Amino acid sequence: MVIGGGSAGISCATRASSLGAKVCLIERKNLGGTCVNRGCVPKKLMWEAGRVWKDARELETVGIAPNLGPFDLQALKTRISDKIEAIRESYASSLEDAGVTVLRADAELLDDKQVRVKGRILSAKNIVLATGGSPILLDIPGKDLLSTSRDVFEWTEIPKSLLVIGGGYIGCEFASIFRALGSDVCIVDAGDRLLEQFDEVAVGHAQDILTARGIKVRLSVEPTSLSKTAGKITVEFDSGPAEAVTHVLCAVGRSPNIDELGPVTESMERAENGALKVTDRLETSASGIYAIGDAADRLPLTPVATRDGEALADILFGEGARLVDLDLVSSATFLYPPIAQVGETESGTAFDGITTPLPSGVLSAETIEVYGKINSDSATGQLKGAVLIGHSAADEIAWIASCLAAGGRSEDLTKATAVHPTLAEEVVGRR
Amino acid sequence: MVIGGGSAGISCATRASSLGAKVCLIERKNLGGTCVNRGCVPKKLMWEAGRVWKDARELETVGIAPNLGPFDLQALKTRISDKIEAIRESYASSLEDAGVTVLRADAELLDDKQVRVKGRILSAKNIVLATGGSPILLDIPGKDLLSTSRDVFEWTEIPKSLLVIGGGYIGCEFASIFRALGSDVCIVDAGDRLLEQFDEVAVGHAQDILTARGIKVRLSVEPTSLSKTAGKITVEFDSGPAEAVTHVLCAVGRSPNIDELGPVTESMERAENGALKVTDRLETSASGIYAIGDAADRLPLTPVATRDGEALADILFGEGARLVDLDLVSSATFLYPPIAQVGETESGTAFDGITTPLPSGVLSAETIEVYGKINSDSATGQLKGAVLIGHSAADEIAWIASCLAAGGRSEDLTKATAVHPTLAEEVVGRR
Repeated sequence: MVIGGGSAGISCATRASSLGAKVCLIERKNLGGTCVNRGCVPKKLMWEAGRVWKDARELETVGIAPNLGPFDLQALKTRISDKIEAIRESYASSLEDAGVTVLRADAELLDDKQVRVKGRILSAKNIVLATGGSPILLDIPGKDLLSTSRDVFEWTEIPKSLLVIGGGYIGCEFASIFRALGSDVCIVDAGDRLLEQFDEVAVGHAQDILTARGIKVRLSVEPTSLSKTAGKITVEFDSGPAEAVTHVLCAVGRSPNIDELGPVTESMERAENGALKVTDRLETSASGIYAIGDAADRLPLTPVATRDGEALADILFGEGARLVDLDLVSSATFLYPPIAQVGETESGTAFDGITTPLPSGVLSAETIEVYGKINSDSATGQLKGAVLIGHSAADEIAWIASCLAAGGRSEDLTKATAVHPTLAEEVVGRR
Repeated sequence: MVIGGGSAGISCATRASSLGAKVCLIERKNLGGTCVNRGCVPKKLMWEAGRVWKDARELETVGIAPNLGPFDLQALKTRISDKIEAIRESYASSLEDAGVTVLRADAELLDDKQVRVKGRILSAKNIVLATGGSPILLDIPGKDLLSTSRDVFEWTEIPKSLLVIGGGYIGCEFASIFRALGSDVCIVDAGDRLLEQFDEVAVGHAQDILTARGIKVRLSVEPTSLSKTAGKITVEFDSGPAEAVTHVLCAVGRSPNIDELGPVTESMERAENGALKVTDRLETSASGIYAIGDAADRLPLTPVATRDGEALADILFGEGARLVDLDLVSSATFLYPPIAQVGETESGTAFDGITTPLPSGVLSAETIEVYGKINSDSATGQLKGAVLIGHSAADEIAWIASCLAAGGRSEDLTKATAVHPTLAEEVVGRR
């Protein structure tokens, strides 16, 4: 019995069924989870649209496309909704084809064998929690005026002015997207830096890029209250001036959806962020109950969820599986351009290369400086990690992860030759 | 003495000077050679502008940016010229800073020690030919009506209709760029396929993409004559109907600039395309005369030219050098999206994955299918080569080349995990 029909649950259910298991999947709302319905997929589509629009606006600024006209957010939203609906339907058919029973309902976990669904008690030998996560809401006066990453996709107009609370990847991505679509944007963060999961030096460059794009960044500042007057939301802080904006996005983190499964979960071992601790068989501290995806204390990323879902099916019904090596997992934040990272980047001997991509400053008024760092062991040259900022960083990083997996050394980057003109040539083929 | 101030000559001269040699560089026109003045750099900038415009037009087609206005080619040309001028100037200063004497003149090679420049005879212990290459012109009636890749950057308007003769990388790139800017485009080729240097199966997909973008492709057909009537150029062929267009681009290949160096070159050993054969010390069959860049029988690519230029300086004045491994050189053709390749792709066990990138069909009316193939040894899993078609293929391929250099195996691609949603995830992190 799989509770949750997102990336993790669907991949686990489909594979378990293909291995001969009798599988029931319970989903309280839409198939596809956060990724498809209010995460990766609509975000990437908005990011792509924002990229095209930003690039076109830059051509306008330098006189190459002098007369652009408006951007129709509603038309974009319709195209995105249609795509999401198509993905949901394809998931529904593949689950059906695989012979998985899908129930649309809330689920309450009763013990390691039983779940209550619509008042009925269902039992299964193995229970898999794949319930995902949800945005955390700040608990301050006026919190009803906050939007979350769920709400962003429902906005009916491009914000005239947007305050983003939280400079993590979600906050920085929506700040970038709405700035590209024309909003005045300010990001505030309680900490002293943005994008905590990424290399500190690289994030410094990323912050410069955000600033160059016209996004205001305020660090070490916490909102204390929100209030609404005459169509604007005023946000007060523990220090510094208030901000008066049309929209406020709260992006202070996400928390696993565990508690709503019922009191049984209270005794299960949790990580600091509330995710369920799991063994290398993805079993929680409650024997017979497994967790995958954002509900588990792994990495809250779709590819990890999908691969862990498959691995769990192989562990329970197939020939076993080794879990994904989290040190070889690529991650990215879709700024303009994106920042992407794999492995360890903070220590060791680093190659630093700051460069200016070719179209920048030619097809745009400003010059945007990008960045790359390859970390390798100073004694052996063995590659340990990399961080890139560049238009195709999110794709390139996967191949760098593959180089790490292959035990590549910095000399291997020198032996290879890149295409000219690309950003990769600033690193590959250099001595 | 270095004859030719393009990528190869400049890198050789600068490095040789830094190693203590007394260096003179002779350039008959502008510093930067084909790459900077009428190749990689202006082409990539036009390609980037075309990409933005194509993407914006697609948003227009689906109603997201409903009212785009015109594209100003003249404004683009001015921005590109300014950039080229800046690069030329930076080359001039770095040569000056390095202590290289630069002469602006034609050069005639007299023997392995002497060169005639502006009527004076100069001599040097080592002579380096870095004279680059030029477009080949078809010798058919009406050939004066042909433009080449040199002329394209001088065009004062976007062609209403464009016939491209030659389906190699230059022909396919300009066909794609001008199609993106609004031209009606037809590519003809005498052979039975496009892009001969690229993997045949991948090129089949690339041709489907060109066709989906509205480019007409006619294979196994040779132009026999051109004539002009009422503002149009009519091109007749050995079979099939004539084409009447406003512009004709001849892109049937490039030939090394050797003969204009004088009769001394007649006795030097040549490859089939006319390039000078060189040893692994980059020496021609005439002892003491060296060749680098497109003048040499290596790969006619800027990064190879640059690296060979440096290597030659190291061989002559430093501690020697091993030449770039040509099996690890990435190459790409900038279509929308680009195709990129490294290593051997035709044989062995191939991973085939045809996929649809996320924005395609959502932010555009049509769905464009892209393609990827990883070739690995069927027994050992050792990676042998790859070909990709995708928006960031030209950057990604360099890291795949690095994986090849590292002796990576197909299992290493499985161990790594990619970012979602990207194209790289269709290969990296799959079983």
